[in-house]
Amino acid sequence: MRGEEVVEEKVMDISLKELSRQLEEFAKARDWEKYHSPRNLLLAMVGEVGELSEIFQWKGEVEKGLPNWEESEKEHLGEELSDVLLYLIRLADVCGIDLGDAASKKIVKNAIKYPLPKKLFE
Amino acid sequence: MRGEEVVEEKVMDISLKELSRQLEEFAKARDWEKYHSPRNLLLAMVGEVGELSEIFQWKGEVEKGLPNWEESEKEHLGEELSDVLLYLIRLADVCGIDLGDAASKKIVKNAIKYPLPKKLFE
Amino acid sequence: MRGEEVVEEKVMDISLKELSRQLEEFAKARDWEKYHSPRNLLLAMVGEVGELSEIFQWKGEVEKGLPNWEESEKEHLGEELSDVLLYLIRLADVCGIDLGDAASKKIVKNAIKYPLPKKLFE
Amino acid sequence: MRGEEVVEEKVMDISLKELSRQLEEFAKARDWEKYHSPRNLLLAMVGEVGELSEIFQWKGEVEKGLPNWEESEKEHLGEELSDVLLYLIRLADVCGIDLGDAASKKIVKNAIKYPLPKKLFE
Repeated sequence: MRGEEVVEEKVMDISLKELSRQLEEFAKARDWEKYHSPRNLLLAMVGEVGELSEIFQWKGEVEKGLPNWEESEKEHLGEELSDVLLYLIRLADVCGIDLGDAASKKIVKNAIKYPLPKKLFE
Repeated sequence: MRGEEVVEEKVMDISLKELSRQLEEFAKARDWEKYHSPRNLLLAMVGEVGELSEIFQWKGEVEKGLPNWEESEKEHLGEELSDVLLYLIRLADVCGIDLGDAASKKIVKNAIKYPLPKKLFE
Repeated sequence: MRGEEVVEEKVMDISLKELSRQLEEFAKARDWEKYHSPRNLLLAMVGEVGELSEIFQWKGEVEKGLPNWEESEKEHLGEELSDVLLYLIRLADVCGIDLGDAASKKIVKNAIKYPLPKKLFE
Repeated sequence: MRGEEVVEEKVMDISLKELSRQLEEFAKARDWEKYHSPRNLLLAMVGEVGELSEIFQWKGEVEKGLPNWEESEKEHLGEELSDVLLYLIRLADVCGIDLGDAASKKIVKNAIKYPLPKKLFE
């Protein structure tokens, strides 16, 4: 049944707000909130973007789906992508920006900026 | 009732999978999938990280919540944060990485790496 | 004569110290020194790295020497490379780091870290 | 004597062309030229920008001259600044861009873009 599938998917999926909530709790429990100023978090994110780039730096062009990558390398990639995401979410949070809302609006804005090509025949 | 609140929150919130799905559809509809190779998307993301940094570059230290920022500046910030997020999600996607899953695992890993300080008194 | 050639080359070439001196003078003359804190300059440099990346983002692999690039595109590239360089030099300067000296030492350190492969036959 | 001082300074200073020459020789001797494509070098540079940012990430605002930094930390900073510089020079080189020339022109262009404030009284 379609309805049940959706519910199930939601359980396996995670929302930006839920990640944001977990990160805030994580920082609070360790008394790290004092370090989480906007520019500190931004520079921490740039640091993670650097680590992500290092994975790709000597590879030349990389195919979609990473067909020839070792499993351990893919896992490492998942971790670096996550590190960028987690600092990005935290940065948005301390700036008082609702990132999920902003991202949804940006997609709508992009859809207006780049309208669909007209089809000659339907 | 607690249960209803959770459901309501989920409706207003957006998940990483839903954003990923929207971005894939967006690219497909515009025949942009051919441009979305891993390293193209990575460099596009670095470009957006640059635009995000430009917002903060001449400001010196910035307070949490951005108390003295104009509304238009906050909106611009929301857009640049979104641009980084959207390319990050798309990059994970073309690499075959489940970003929400990877991020959840990374938080658990971090919790083990940085255990909670022991409390002297409960 | 070898000596004269070297002198001639030095005239056409520019040193890191000379660029550093020009940038300091430029900032002083415009009363911009107050903005040139280490982290402001670092974020400004990240902004320029973003602009540099944008030039390469949708190109796929790019050949050495950029054989198929328009002259105007190469000029744009030269400007973005320069922007990164100029903020990098200025950042080193306000941190009290002699960048030319540090770079020379780093090359020596790298030569020790990555020794030349031994030749089987001379 | 002024003339001698200038010569002496030039000896201690290093030019962009000289660094470029050393880096090319370094790559050739190790048979690394095949890895030095424009986008590989760009991503390697982004990686080093990340390492540079990590030095500054949890520090809050940093004073010019880094008055309270350990000597070892300053040395580390010098190395990361150098790594960014060396990849930037190498990137310009494989793109066929004369970085010193481009940077000099960019300073002139900036001087026109941001003219000196007129003095009310001389």
